[in-house]
Amino acid sequence: MTGRDGGADLQPIEPSPVVILVRPQMAENIGSVARAMGNGGLFHLRIVAPRDGWPQERAWITGSGAHKILDAATVHETVADAVADLHRVFATCPRPRHIIKPVLTARGAAIELHEIGARGLKTGILFGPERAGLDNDDIACADSLIRYDLNPGFMSLNLAQAVMIMGYEWFIVRDADAPLKNLQTNETRVATKGELENFMAHLIRACDDANFLKNEQKRPGMVRNLRHFFQRGEVTTQELNTLHGVVADLARGPRR
Amino acid sequence: MTGRDGGADLQPIEPSPVVILVRPQMAENIGSVARAMGNGGLFHLRIVAPRDGWPQERAWITGSGAHKILDAATVHETVADAVADLHRVFATCPRPRHIIKPVLTARGAAIELHEIGARGLKTGILFGPERAGLDNDDIACADSLIRYDLNPGFMSLNLAQAVMIMGYEWFIVRDADAPLKNLQTNETRVATKGELENFMAHLIRACDDANFLKNEQKRPGMVRNLRHFFQRGEVTTQELNTLHGVVADLARGPRR
Repeated sequence: MTGRDGGADLQPIEPSPVVILVRPQMAENIGSVARAMGNGGLFHLRIVAPRDGWPQERAWITGSGAHKILDAATVHETVADAVADLHRVFATCPRPRHIIKPVLTARGAAIELHEIGARGLKTGILFGPERAGLDNDDIACADSLIRYDLNPGFMSLNLAQAVMIMGYEWFIVRDADAPLKNLQTNETRVATKGELENFMAHLIRACDDANFLKNEQKRPGMVRNLRHFFQRGEVTTQELNTLHGVVADLARGPRR
Repeated sequence: MTGRDGGADLQPIEPSPVVILVRPQMAENIGSVARAMGNGGLFHLRIVAPRDGWPQERAWITGSGAHKILDAATVHETVADAVADLHRVFATCPRPRHIIKPVLTARGAAIELHEIGARGLKTGILFGPERAGLDNDDIACADSLIRYDLNPGFMSLNLAQAVMIMGYEWFIVRDADAPLKNLQTNETRVATKGELENFMAHLIRACDDANFLKNEQKRPGMVRNLRHFFQRGEVTTQELNTLHGVVADLARGPRR
């Protein structure tokens, strides 16, 4: 499922939200976060009080090509400092308790992030440290909470996975009208019903000539079955050409 | 963003699609895949020709509690063997070329997986090896392709991330009518407009008593501004109680 593209062309897609990692522990995870950000079209990374300091070479290794994101990352002492220039802040929070704030799904948050960004306001998303998550003081810096729709029976969510889901949703909302399904056709195209009918006529003529449809009583049902089969999904013009050739050559009978 | 839940309660949510890892290289990645599957409510794991053999202890370490998924995983020599009992197979494929098959987004595939599963049919999703991805023979075993909506400028997608996104979409489709936004209120509840109005009356009375609204010409605009502010978002009854207290105590004037 991986590709081979490097990150040389990585650049911000504005307005894109800032990813803020609060007290992250493992540099490897920071690198994996950067990679996930690249996948989701996010670019701006801020790191609050990283346990092992910054920069750390290990992050560039797990970043897997997302160097530009890591190179541009900034380090901050406090969450308040990291969000100071932002207009709206979201906090990812798997199990908010005793906090009166709007709670959004990742999808709902992605929509709001776009709406707020479209107004020229800067947004950010807080992600807590591995294991412990954000504490109450961190969350007090946020306007809204994000709680993912995931299996409540298994909540152990990797930091980079949390960033991945948010980036994925953010990237999709940018292109919300994209079709959910397409037929991949490359250099050919989906055949029209007329082109399909042309083939069906060819096929039925050939079947008639070959006496395959000689039983007049069964003929209509058999023709209908053939039509059903060839109508099952979209057919390309290229495939029809091939089928025409198959029928023509079969109809010519065996060659010796 | 991580939680502390172990995977002791992990169990299949049926009908759930089978995740099929084709020729995976690193056991760590297989473990991370199992963790992501747990997050997304997936359970059935099949492994085709794992490079380093199976089982591998490292997978149980990165699995981070998803032991039940790894314990139940089966190993297969070929993709054909791994999909033999399934009715419909999807292949994740970042850049399909020269292949005439339906191409779905992860979201579109999640919807189809549910529809097919609801008919009592078994489904599976193929994920290719790190770096190389699925080859043409693998893809020939699939009915449809899945191509994720992600940044085309940075295609290097980690194997576990690919599984995470699919599991996330699959889990969400199960609960498609869930609201995108809620106010998290815990033991309190959102106040009615009547309760808010009751407070507004209290506040305005107090302001009048304190001569804050003494300018008769400006009074309507000032009252309106106060109303606008308190109407900006949902307010809880608990917050209103607090505000009543603040106003009452302020109105009493300084105590010495």
